[in-house]
Amino acid sequence: MKALLASWEDLCASSRPLRFVDVNLRGIGQVMFQDNPLSGLLFFVAIGWGSYAAGVGQVAIGGLIAVLAATSTAYWLRVDEDALHAGLYGFNGYLVGLSLATFMAPSTTMWVYVVFGGAISVVVTLAISNVFKTWNVPALTAPFVLTAWLLLLATNAFSKLEGGALPPVGEIVPIDPAVANPLQLGDFVSGVFTSITQVFLKGHGPAALLLLAGLAVNSPACAAFAAVGAVAAVVTAHMLGAESDLVTAGLIGFNPVLTAIALGAVFNRPNARVFVYALVGAVLSAIVQGSMMTLMTPFGIPTLTAAFILVTWLFLLPAQKFE
Amino acid sequence: MKALLASWEDLCASSRPLRFVDVNLRGIGQVMFQDNPLSGLLFFVAIGWGSYAAGVGQVAIGGLIAVLAATSTAYWLRVDEDALHAGLYGFNGYLVGLSLATFMAPSTTMWVYVVFGGAISVVVTLAISNVFKTWNVPALTAPFVLTAWLLLLATNAFSKLEGGALPPVGEIVPIDPAVANPLQLGDFVSGVFTSITQVFLKGHGPAALLLLAGLAVNSPACAAFAAVGAVAAVVTAHMLGAESDLVTAGLIGFNPVLTAIALGAVFNRPNARVFVYALVGAVLSAIVQGSMMTLMTPFGIPTLTAAFILVTWLFLLPAQKFE
Amino acid sequence: MKALLASWEDLCASSRPLRFVDVNLRGIGQVMFQDNPLSGLLFFVAIGWGSYAAGVGQVAIGGLIAVLAATSTAYWLRVDEDALHAGLYGFNGYLVGLSLATFMAPSTTMWVYVVFGGAISVVVTLAISNVFKTWNVPALTAPFVLTAWLLLLATNAFSKLEGGALPPVGEIVPIDPAVANPLQLGDFVSGVFTSITQVFLKGHGPAALLLLAGLAVNSPACAAFAAVGAVAAVVTAHMLGAESDLVTAGLIGFNPVLTAIALGAVFNRPNARVFVYALVGAVLSAIVQGSMMTLMTPFGIPTLTAAFILVTWLFLLPAQKFE
Repeated sequence: MKALLASWEDLCASSRPLRFVDVNLRGIGQVMFQDNPLSGLLFFVAIGWGSYAAGVGQVAIGGLIAVLAATSTAYWLRVDEDALHAGLYGFNGYLVGLSLATFMAPSTTMWVYVVFGGAISVVVTLAISNVFKTWNVPALTAPFVLTAWLLLLATNAFSKLEGGALPPVGEIVPIDPAVANPLQLGDFVSGVFTSITQVFLKGHGPAALLLLAGLAVNSPACAAFAAVGAVAAVVTAHMLGAESDLVTAGLIGFNPVLTAIALGAVFNRPNARVFVYALVGAVLSAIVQGSMMTLMTPFGIPTLTAAFILVTWLFLLPAQKFE
Repeated sequence: MKALLASWEDLCASSRPLRFVDVNLRGIGQVMFQDNPLSGLLFFVAIGWGSYAAGVGQVAIGGLIAVLAATSTAYWLRVDEDALHAGLYGFNGYLVGLSLATFMAPSTTMWVYVVFGGAISVVVTLAISNVFKTWNVPALTAPFVLTAWLLLLATNAFSKLEGGALPPVGEIVPIDPAVANPLQLGDFVSGVFTSITQVFLKGHGPAALLLLAGLAVNSPACAAFAAVGAVAAVVTAHMLGAESDLVTAGLIGFNPVLTAIALGAVFNRPNARVFVYALVGAVLSAIVQGSMMTLMTPFGIPTLTAAFILVTWLFLLPAQKFE
Repeated sequence: MKALLASWEDLCASSRPLRFVDVNLRGIGQVMFQDNPLSGLLFFVAIGWGSYAAGVGQVAIGGLIAVLAATSTAYWLRVDEDALHAGLYGFNGYLVGLSLATFMAPSTTMWVYVVFGGAISVVVTLAISNVFKTWNVPALTAPFVLTAWLLLLATNAFSKLEGGALPPVGEIVPIDPAVANPLQLGDFVSGVFTSITQVFLKGHGPAALLLLAGLAVNSPACAAFAAVGAVAAVVTAHMLGAESDLVTAGLIGFNPVLTAIALGAVFNRPNARVFVYALVGAVLSAIVQGSMMTLMTPFGIPTLTAAFILVTWLFLLPAQKFE
């Protein structure tokens, strides 16, 4: 595998078009922190599969177009080349594309919007990275969430931008205990798998295997912590009495998956204390996903990965050493 | 013109009362980034004209009282003298005064509130400036927006503070396409002009000429970018299907006007790449104005210049060099 | 008194269990900025009294359990020892415990939640402190407010977490002038006293005397500014026409009390200019408490000490010298 990646890197070093492809694949890989074109390719295939299976092929295409727009914009802005080549200016754009194509009705204007959103995500990435560099903490997917929220909120003000599949606007109402049913084993397993695919806004259990493979080829520890985060989320949500349908669809678990990977294997070296810290972070992310869903109710926009970002920032900012 | 300003500066250097007048005029000029008492005077006359024409003379008076309160407070707080003399502690106060007098019912308490708001705006300016200095980015009109939002939100809790002309509180509802009519040429021109005057919370086309004159006497590039921002906003809003009445009244365009001036001519030196960057910023500001109107709907407060501040911060924080 | 504290400190230096008790007491004392175990003990007794008198003894117990969890977590995280011994990792946890036990229905899950909240508050304290250290400004009670808001918002999404006593969710409606009645002298005095006890989420006038005693044993200036803040708040709220019941229950005044202590006696050395600055801060805190109540209305969560934090940050960030 290492030899394969090394010869691919040689090819990219001598070919601008291949380098462009490489940067975009790494951009997709960075959605789950992997600076590896093969991870990116596996993620891309998984999302294509999930989109096709759900009859919304335009979602995968939206992601692709937006990551291309983001990478091109990053070149135009002459950003730092190391960060660019590591895919750090692509993953937020990719997610912006997936989210706009998920929550908006397809139209010519929507496609223009996807390109625009991908491009803007690079500026927002530079801005937020610059601020958080002060405390040696990464921007994570905050540029995606901020860009997507702004662009989705605007659909209410412009008639050519249709937010067809946005969550309904409503008054906050405490959950009806009747919807928190005991989870069957099958639902439990389904919840774990879809928690992983919902990181890419898709609820498609089998595709989770491709995502885990994409993680494992670059970092087995990341794959393990993804699974830990997913299990922790489903158990926490179930024990606290979350809506079963949300748990099973992975809509509580995708934030804890990202938090567990970030705290457990990316920004700390794994050990027993780090495991505890990452686990507490994952549990808190499951709870905060509930808070974020509440907070967004009057605005009719999705929570996206806000819970992951908030909790991971709070857990990285202390700059604790766990060695 | 230069000779005139030089002899005025000589007069101010030897007279405390004239210096006080000068600082207040520059404070008004800084609403559109002009450190020039003549710009400030032209802006002041334009707003007086616009207020009188709309039958709300108290708005112009509110602005005047608040900028005097702000400047006096800045002296009391012994702020940095260079920044004070450049009018940097006045423009937020002036805008706070205009906004309180625009959105509240006139009463004795309101006038006390205007003085209080002008004074507080200086503390908030110092605070926000100090934070953003970390990234070498200015506070822009954020102190105005934060101060005005806090003071206007409080009108719901105190019966002697009446927010008579605040936007209605409501549930977020997507725009009805019927209100997005084709714009006639006259509406188009009107939208461009009022986009410029709405920077000062007034929708009065002819006064835009005075504002453009005030810009041009100090910086023709600023005047040009103001026009670019206004045209970009009206075109964007119209093509995306915004409510025609909002476009024509300048209520989409005032944020893009400020963004275009800031990004195109104040914080970057104009060139082709900068023009593209400022234009994208202006287009995004028009969209984000739609997002902000949506976001404020449940709270019943105006968006003020929040879209300009957010987009301009996002576009300045990357600290891109365009030379 | 000094001799007593010195010998207590000697005892703590040689006994781990006594040190643990000392750290927790100082943690409670730091709710009102007092690094003094006797202040903490007096505050603890006052809150126990207030809780018992109101028939909600679980509130005092919730505070106790959460501060113990916070202190233990701080030890586990190996935080800076000086800050730990000064109680700086305890007060936010104590307030989280008081607030969860105040606004949630008692249940086994709630008690687990109280322990979890106390523990999390330490991570959030480290995070926010690290950010604001950049500008030499303390985190104040922001970790408490952020933690409590997130945990309380989540009660809407999890059926085993019941937010029984949370404020109702509603649409923002301007105050009905009829509820702003003239305050009788008794109401006025009551408002001043409960403004002090509401710092700890309790409206129990007599307990205010214990709190003032707890302040006075460590810092007479703090006790004086607490009284100044309370009087300023009640006068301001009454003159602006706030709801009389809120004023009398201390629900406008607790933020100004904290602001006055912080600005007048803790982070500035008291003098005439500082007195004016702290007084303006206290008046603004009373107004901003009205803004915060408005802002929280659609979300159904309490304002907690958000007004104090916001205003005190805005007044400390300028880093003005008043000597």
